[in-house]
Amino acid sequence: MDDKTESLLKRLAQGDQRALSRLITYVDNDHPDCLEALASLDHSQSMSKLIGITGPPGAGKSTLTDQLISSFRHQKLNVGVIAIDPSSPFTGGAVLGDRIRMQRHAADDGVFIRSLGSHGSHGGLSNATRDVVALMKAFGLEKSSPFDVIIVETVGVGQTELDIMSLVDTTVVVLVPESGDTVQTMKAGLMEIADIFVVNKSDRTGADHIFGELKVLSHIAATEDWEIPVHKVVASQGKGLEDLLNSLEIHQKTLEKTSSENSEKKNQVLRQQVLSILTHQIEKRVLEKGFEITEGENPYAVVKRLLSEMNK
Amino acid sequence: MDDKTESLLKRLAQGDQRALSRLITYVDNDHPDCLEALASLDHSQSMSKLIGITGPPGAGKSTLTDQLISSFRHQKLNVGVIAIDPSSPFTGGAVLGDRIRMQRHAADDGVFIRSLGSHGSHGGLSNATRDVVALMKAFGLEKSSPFDVIIVETVGVGQTELDIMSLVDTTVVVLVPESGDTVQTMKAGLMEIADIFVVNKSDRTGADHIFGELKVLSHIAATEDWEIPVHKVVASQGKGLEDLLNSLEIHQKTLEKTSSENSEKKNQVLRQQVLSILTHQIEKRVLEKGFEITEGENPYAVVKRLLSEMNK
Repeated sequence: MDDKTESLLKRLAQGDQRALSRLITYVDNDHPDCLEALASLDHSQSMSKLIGITGPPGAGKSTLTDQLISSFRHQKLNVGVIAIDPSSPFTGGAVLGDRIRMQRHAADDGVFIRSLGSHGSHGGLSNATRDVVALMKAFGLEKSSPFDVIIVETVGVGQTELDIMSLVDTTVVVLVPESGDTVQTMKAGLMEIADIFVVNKSDRTGADHIFGELKVLSHIAATEDWEIPVHKVVASQGKGLEDLLNSLEIHQKTLEKTSSENSEKKNQVLRQQVLSILTHQIEKRVLEKGFEITEGENPYAVVKRLLSEMNK
Repeated sequence: MDDKTESLLKRLAQGDQRALSRLITYVDNDHPDCLEALASLDHSQSMSKLIGITGPPGAGKSTLTDQLISSFRHQKLNVGVIAIDPSSPFTGGAVLGDRIRMQRHAADDGVFIRSLGSHGSHGGLSNATRDVVALMKAFGLEKSSPFDVIIVETVGVGQTELDIMSLVDTTVVVLVPESGDTVQTMKAGLMEIADIFVVNKSDRTGADHIFGELKVLSHIAATEDWEIPVHKVVASQGKGLEDLLNSLEIHQKTLEKTSSENSEKKNQVLRQQVLSILTHQIEKRVLEKGFEITEGENPYAVVKRLLSEMNK
């Protein structure tokens, strides 16, 4: 690890946002010092609460995130935001408008916002997000000015989102009255991922219908500890936000109460993280070294060759 | 590699369907001989045409696949089918009805159908599918009774489906008049994945509208070599099938004509395959050996430890 990286890590621990920015760029560009730097972080003192916001495109996730930031700032909490846009090779793209609105918080020292697109994320978006979360959790720990809340906002409910949402404590799935189709076809995925449901734009026709459907699903899937609450929200007007904030708090408390039962699940997530960090590193090394492959060659035979070279 | 595996591989090359079934089970269970067996296959003589069928749930993909099987059998072609159902931890699940209909071909010696669910696919569905395709391509090569056509049918248009569809030559995306929302939100993904569009259930209201939308998109995305054709089909009645078969043939011919331009893309796919086979193998080995991790431990530090152990 070179001196520059080491100094950036020190400034990160002291709560320097510019150092955080630089280190995120390191991670995004797969800088040679990345693994070393991330391995040196000490999260044991981190108290950041991790909230995930996901849902189909156009559900108003950025508007909701924007409102949540305001509420948390009102409580004098520091907020870090990772806004993920897998649909665009560049950050911004179609949702640039919403993101710009969110950026009004950028002038606020207690808020840090970073967008991640599929561009430059060599190991895929879930790898990049995991790395950025690790950096954000270590931010400001030495000066007791860490992020009290870290929000991860992403689009969709597919496998990538499941991976990303395994990083957070509480996942809010945002739907709109028009999402009836999504609810029907993604039922299993939605129930797996959601801790809280939000029906946004709930002043529109059809809001009661989808609200009812989600209520039934939540009731069926309820466990002794948690029944997914369903909230009607109009994010653009701040309506229904208080109930949502209340649910977020209750969910955090439930997690703390059931932490011993959750430790098995946490260990699973941690083991999965080790495997994906490891395979990403191996991929990186193999790509750096390069390998020969000719058209029509059996890729399994190439792997056998690579493995025996690695074991030498 | 033990004697049993070797004998199965010999029988595979001679076109023994039971041997193919057994080897697929090997792959599904991550049998210790897997890599060795797959690495020993010689695909250089394989002429199998690979067709992918994908689209949202309920679009009638299985019905269409069923009709395609009949058409190919009518032309005396041998057909292999991999039916993937990621939504279900068990094969079958919600689509069992359709799959059963397809199974009417199972008594036909010229047809081989295998379902893959997320259950038992240790390395994920795209790993399992790649392995099964490799086995199917090697089937019957010695007895000149190989599969002339291999159909891969899967649900959705997400990242997993993009990975899976990188294995085939021609991807057919099946939509229905109700898929307007999907077309709007998945535009980029659809255009990336599709070689041919099918509007199934096109006797329903709204068929003309989605047909028009797809036509416009295809026209915008057209290259010198290919403009994605859009076909109205009623799969349950076999309507529109001939035009689809015609497009499949033309697309294959276009691929052959532009094969030199495609070889760069093919090499990319092959290199990506090498990386995913390699990382899957490494993951498997690390999991077999096991590793320690305690709650709150930094996963990047664990990876550093594992890497230095591997380099010993």
